[in-house]
Amino acid sequence: MKSRLILGLFCLVVFGSLQAQKLESPNGNLEMNFSLQEDGTPVYNLEFEGRAIIEKSKLGLELKEGQPLTSNFSIENTEKSTFNETWTPVWGEESEIRNQYNELVVHLDQEDSERKLVLRFRLFNDGLGFRYEFPKDSRLGHFVISDEKTEFAMTGDHTAFWIAGDYDTQEYDYTESKLSEIRGLMTEAVTANVSQKSFSPTGVQTSLMLKTEDGLYINLHEAALLDYPAMHLNLDDETMVFESWLTPDVNGDKAFMIAPGITPWRTIIVSDEAKDILSSRITYNLNEPSKIEDTSWIKPMKYMGVWWEMITGMSSWDYTDEFAAVKLGETDFEAAEPNSTHAATTENVKYYIDFASEHGFDGLLVEGWNVGWEDWFGNSKDYVFDFVTPYPDFDVDEIREYAKSKDVEMIMHHETSASVRNYERHLDTAYQFMKANNYNAVKTGYVGDILPRGENHYSQWIVNHYQYALEKAAEYEIMINAHEAVRPTGIARTWPNLIANESARGTEYQAFGGNKPNHVTVLPFTRLIGGPMDYTPGIFEMDISKLNPDNNSHVNSTLANQLALYITMYSPLQMAADLPKHYEQFMDAFQFIKDVAIDWEKSVYLEAEPGDYITIARKEKDGNNWFVGNVNGLTPRTSEIEFDFLEKGKTYIATVYADAEDAHYKDNPQAYEIKKYRVNSKSELSQKSAPGGGYAISIMEASKDEVKDLEKL
Amino acid sequence: MKSRLILGLFCLVVFGSLQAQKLESPNGNLEMNFSLQEDGTPVYNLEFEGRAIIEKSKLGLELKEGQPLTSNFSIENTEKSTFNETWTPVWGEESEIRNQYNELVVHLDQEDSERKLVLRFRLFNDGLGFRYEFPKDSRLGHFVISDEKTEFAMTGDHTAFWIAGDYDTQEYDYTESKLSEIRGLMTEAVTANVSQKSFSPTGVQTSLMLKTEDGLYINLHEAALLDYPAMHLNLDDETMVFESWLTPDVNGDKAFMIAPGITPWRTIIVSDEAKDILSSRITYNLNEPSKIEDTSWIKPMKYMGVWWEMITGMSSWDYTDEFAAVKLGETDFEAAEPNSTHAATTENVKYYIDFASEHGFDGLLVEGWNVGWEDWFGNSKDYVFDFVTPYPDFDVDEIREYAKSKDVEMIMHHETSASVRNYERHLDTAYQFMKANNYNAVKTGYVGDILPRGENHYSQWIVNHYQYALEKAAEYEIMINAHEAVRPTGIARTWPNLIANESARGTEYQAFGGNKPNHVTVLPFTRLIGGPMDYTPGIFEMDISKLNPDNNSHVNSTLANQLALYITMYSPLQMAADLPKHYEQFMDAFQFIKDVAIDWEKSVYLEAEPGDYITIARKEKDGNNWFVGNVNGLTPRTSEIEFDFLEKGKTYIATVYADAEDAHYKDNPQAYEIKKYRVNSKSELSQKSAPGGGYAISIMEASKDEVKDLEKL
Repeated sequence: MKSRLILGLFCLVVFGSLQAQKLESPNGNLEMNFSLQEDGTPVYNLEFEGRAIIEKSKLGLELKEGQPLTSNFSIENTEKSTFNETWTPVWGEESEIRNQYNELVVHLDQEDSERKLVLRFRLFNDGLGFRYEFPKDSRLGHFVISDEKTEFAMTGDHTAFWIAGDYDTQEYDYTESKLSEIRGLMTEAVTANVSQKSFSPTGVQTSLMLKTEDGLYINLHEAALLDYPAMHLNLDDETMVFESWLTPDVNGDKAFMIAPGITPWRTIIVSDEAKDILSSRITYNLNEPSKIEDTSWIKPMKYMGVWWEMITGMSSWDYTDEFAAVKLGETDFEAAEPNSTHAATTENVKYYIDFASEHGFDGLLVEGWNVGWEDWFGNSKDYVFDFVTPYPDFDVDEIREYAKSKDVEMIMHHETSASVRNYERHLDTAYQFMKANNYNAVKTGYVGDILPRGENHYSQWIVNHYQYALEKAAEYEIMINAHEAVRPTGIARTWPNLIANESARGTEYQAFGGNKPNHVTVLPFTRLIGGPMDYTPGIFEMDISKLNPDNNSHVNSTLANQLALYITMYSPLQMAADLPKHYEQFMDAFQFIKDVAIDWEKSVYLEAEPGDYITIARKEKDGNNWFVGNVNGLTPRTSEIEFDFLEKGKTYIATVYADAEDAHYKDNPQAYEIKKYRVNSKSELSQKSAPGGGYAISIMEASKDEVKDLEKL
Repeated sequence: MKSRLILGLFCLVVFGSLQAQKLESPNGNLEMNFSLQEDGTPVYNLEFEGRAIIEKSKLGLELKEGQPLTSNFSIENTEKSTFNETWTPVWGEESEIRNQYNELVVHLDQEDSERKLVLRFRLFNDGLGFRYEFPKDSRLGHFVISDEKTEFAMTGDHTAFWIAGDYDTQEYDYTESKLSEIRGLMTEAVTANVSQKSFSPTGVQTSLMLKTEDGLYINLHEAALLDYPAMHLNLDDETMVFESWLTPDVNGDKAFMIAPGITPWRTIIVSDEAKDILSSRITYNLNEPSKIEDTSWIKPMKYMGVWWEMITGMSSWDYTDEFAAVKLGETDFEAAEPNSTHAATTENVKYYIDFASEHGFDGLLVEGWNVGWEDWFGNSKDYVFDFVTPYPDFDVDEIREYAKSKDVEMIMHHETSASVRNYERHLDTAYQFMKANNYNAVKTGYVGDILPRGENHYSQWIVNHYQYALEKAAEYEIMINAHEAVRPTGIARTWPNLIANESARGTEYQAFGGNKPNHVTVLPFTRLIGGPMDYTPGIFEMDISKLNPDNNSHVNSTLANQLALYITMYSPLQMAADLPKHYEQFMDAFQFIKDVAIDWEKSVYLEAEPGDYITIARKEKDGNNWFVGNVNGLTPRTSEIEFDFLEKGKTYIATVYADAEDAHYKDNPQAYEIKKYRVNSKSELSQKSAPGGGYAISIMEASKDEVKDLEKL
């Protein structure tokens, strides 16, 4: 990952007790003003093209001991600089990322305490990032943050796309409502989860997507969450001011800090066009460049999994029904009676390997392969898995060799059951086992309440753990796809072996009662702001009772919508989650999943409106093909797109996988049609999408001969 | 460690609803009766030669969920068996240990719940052990013990030698009082400690030493504390009934259990002679045989340390005064200004190596060698040490080679600052570093409040950690001396690489204000019941202000008493804790420390009374020399001992290191005299010990020629 600094940085240091500072974005569209109130409280505001985005908002921190870092400040000096570079991500939505901002650093002195606090603001063309810094001479040493008092004062009763603030889960459907309606909708927004802890009737999670009445789009999140608790937002719904709400530890403390030190960045992405929120790279740009020098082992993967059959309840993770409780190392699985539902058998895995190999997939995930699933959940069990001992019917050696012979890479699964100490104890051995058996990527899971007991999924202590596992994985050249971990904050720039996270309500909930049909029109505006999601798309059979008669869940999506997700839900790790036999029923549609690229030279955000629709075109890396995806919300809609992103003068074959006329996510989800067209950069498409539907297009460069019989678009 | 089964075990299984069971000790001196009360509550009592030791006492457990396991039981069946073996410890007070008991196993069925509970009683000639067992068919699966309701009903208002019940420290002076006086004395018993949490005005710790008015001695403790919270005792001082009080976790839960499973053993040692309490091996016998197959690398050690100069405040652990807070990996120690007090310098270490080598010591401990001591304590710091990075003035390579050339083995120091996760993260690397640099033993420390925050030093979660570190050390062939860890419960039988613990108020407190002068007459009856203590004796300079003018602490012990501790405080790890220069002032007395053995063929407990005096004779393993130690309490006392433990017909030289006539722990602690005598098995000695004094005797086999000029005793 090289970075290219286009313009050097210059620096202005101004000493003196200045009371107001203005910072403009490089293109002048955004303006941030910083000042101190009379009582020495730091405040800032933000404007976009002269329109207020953030009203005057306070900054500060309360400490467990001593004078709070909220007021009594004077400005010691300020620094301004500008920065402009282009860097090359290991994987991503584009092959080069521009990182350009103007920076203001404010050095504050606190009266009486003689403590120092630094505020660093970076204003990009598409938004603002700022953080707190505690310099070496801050007189802080070790200190505990009891509350972060960062305000985001809204200019009105905006529309928000929100999920309930929670210390343990993000796996909620989004609610679209006015800010003033959050309180009334909170109870129904908090649906049941196996581990959850809400904290306030107006508490919501980031990234939070907002829309103002006059058509401005605002996104609030954080970047570079490292060894600090995850930030939520708590709304004062009289004043419409959000305040940061950090995830507490077991004693209610928020962050144990050491000076010199920093907080994560707080980010505000702004535009008058929704699609610009999707193209923003602020979150990555506020993270440090890669700390992994040789990244050649980090590779995007398209994969299948022995997984959906367990999620739907058709098969089981566990091997036997004999044990009420398992003691690893003592319980004898060899002597146990197998149940008839265990999915991770050598035979079944080989069946998946055959299918994955035949259709060109890179990898295969297998869950439920290792002993311990009989009592893995809900028992607050400490030693729940050892991550190296297979069930008797899963032959590690045979599978390793078979997968190798079929050119499919096995993907490891480490469910931790949120027993974090146990996982850390086994981490080296588990990673070594992976490398010895050709597993170079691992899906990790943190289902259930955290051990050590009393901690939360998003508290500092546990955020620290996810990072520990990630950095140790990098030592072993292992890629991580972490489920139920804290939502990403652009850390994959620094540690690009974090190839995906779950950290939101994924496709699995389509088998647990369903997701909202427009869920996937919101996720790119919220969850994906911090990094890719292992959403596990590609479900072709929407009637789950066909897999498991006891499960009446329905997948609220059309088949064409499922295809579009490979484009609209960017991830370097893309699953085809359904069973091989379901793909075999729709091989013409499955062709798109086989064709679609997973790493991109560039992305063009054609149209987008959160909750309603998203249409994106992407050009594959190291190739000339393009792929387009459209996902649609509840209202049938015709999308009008131009193909001017294509290279001028070239001819392509566009294969359009679209909802059939009568398609509907609920009643007729499998109704799709596939059409081929001749297209070039002047082509235009008018394409209808059904409720919960969408379309996917592959655009392959072609010779004139190849396209001569095709209809021109 | 081989074990020799002398008599086979036989087994009687009796089915039916039996309501009372009697169990006798092999010699018939002890009788235990078990029965169910009318409501199905299990009860037991214990008698010694017809005299009540434990009145009828209830047994049972309360669970977090479901019917408590306290009543509604019926007896499904009972089993009786007898056991007699002799086993060979790797190290110890004797080279062979007899393990003989009669066993009663009671299988209980609980009405309604249909749960099963098993009680296993083992009655030895010197006491009782019993535990709860949860069989596979107990219908318990995973369960949480919210309280253990084991009673020990006293027969009267006994005298107790107690320290305050506490979840985090055992480092208290003992109080001798009637049971009825505990409540009134509790406040003054709870002296300040850096991490402490008391729970009840009548809560005390085990092992608890008791004496009845009619001269019976009773000791209450536990054996084989594994993955379970440490047990305290809470006294109902109206009924004089002790009840078990388990150390809670952060949520107040006690033990997370899995069936099949067991609790630790609860032990009651009984005799009408105090010295028999010292010779009891019940605690070891109730532990499993060694799980380490090749124990050849486990070796008792006599050692010195770069330590006392820091404890007294004469030198420092930390290297520099520059940093208010250290970030390992970021803070630059190479560039820092050293303070002038850092003790662990290459030069100083070499000085100690020279002295240790010259005087035949096996090892040298060095504390403060690794970066992180500047802010190690009191900051709830997570990443406090990395256990592998030395300060700039400590040359690992040079010291390794120098120590090797001088035939001294370096002893590693791992202070964790109670940051347990951080220690576990570094454990493999730290152990590997040790082996690479010829360190085969480590002193660990857990000073301060536990991280993960909210846990306690003696809760199940952390007890599990000490065991984890111990077992992992065994994999690396590393011996452990754990300070501030939970007090031992005979686990060293199973894991003989646990060569010592602190887990009580050690010699260091002589530099922190002093210990009670009779402290060492109590410890063998309490703390040492579970295993050896790294008491760090051998202080010759009792006026600490001579080391550090700012420290007015006084060592409440005579010099002769310090010598006696090498015998009376059994440990396979014995330190000579004082500075070389203080030994150089008293080389004739120092000779005893050089001569004394540290591993024993047999031990003879000559006389003992808790709080007053202890006199023990021990014969070295693989040799014919004997060593005798006497420690005395507050009252001057003349000890009359016979040498009939010596081999008949042999002649020895006895060198007696005793208090001088005017010696006194306070005013005249360094007044000692050394006399040599000719002795044989018929010799008798009448020897006076001063307050806080004692004597030590080396008895070396000698030819008639060698003894001809010596006075006969």
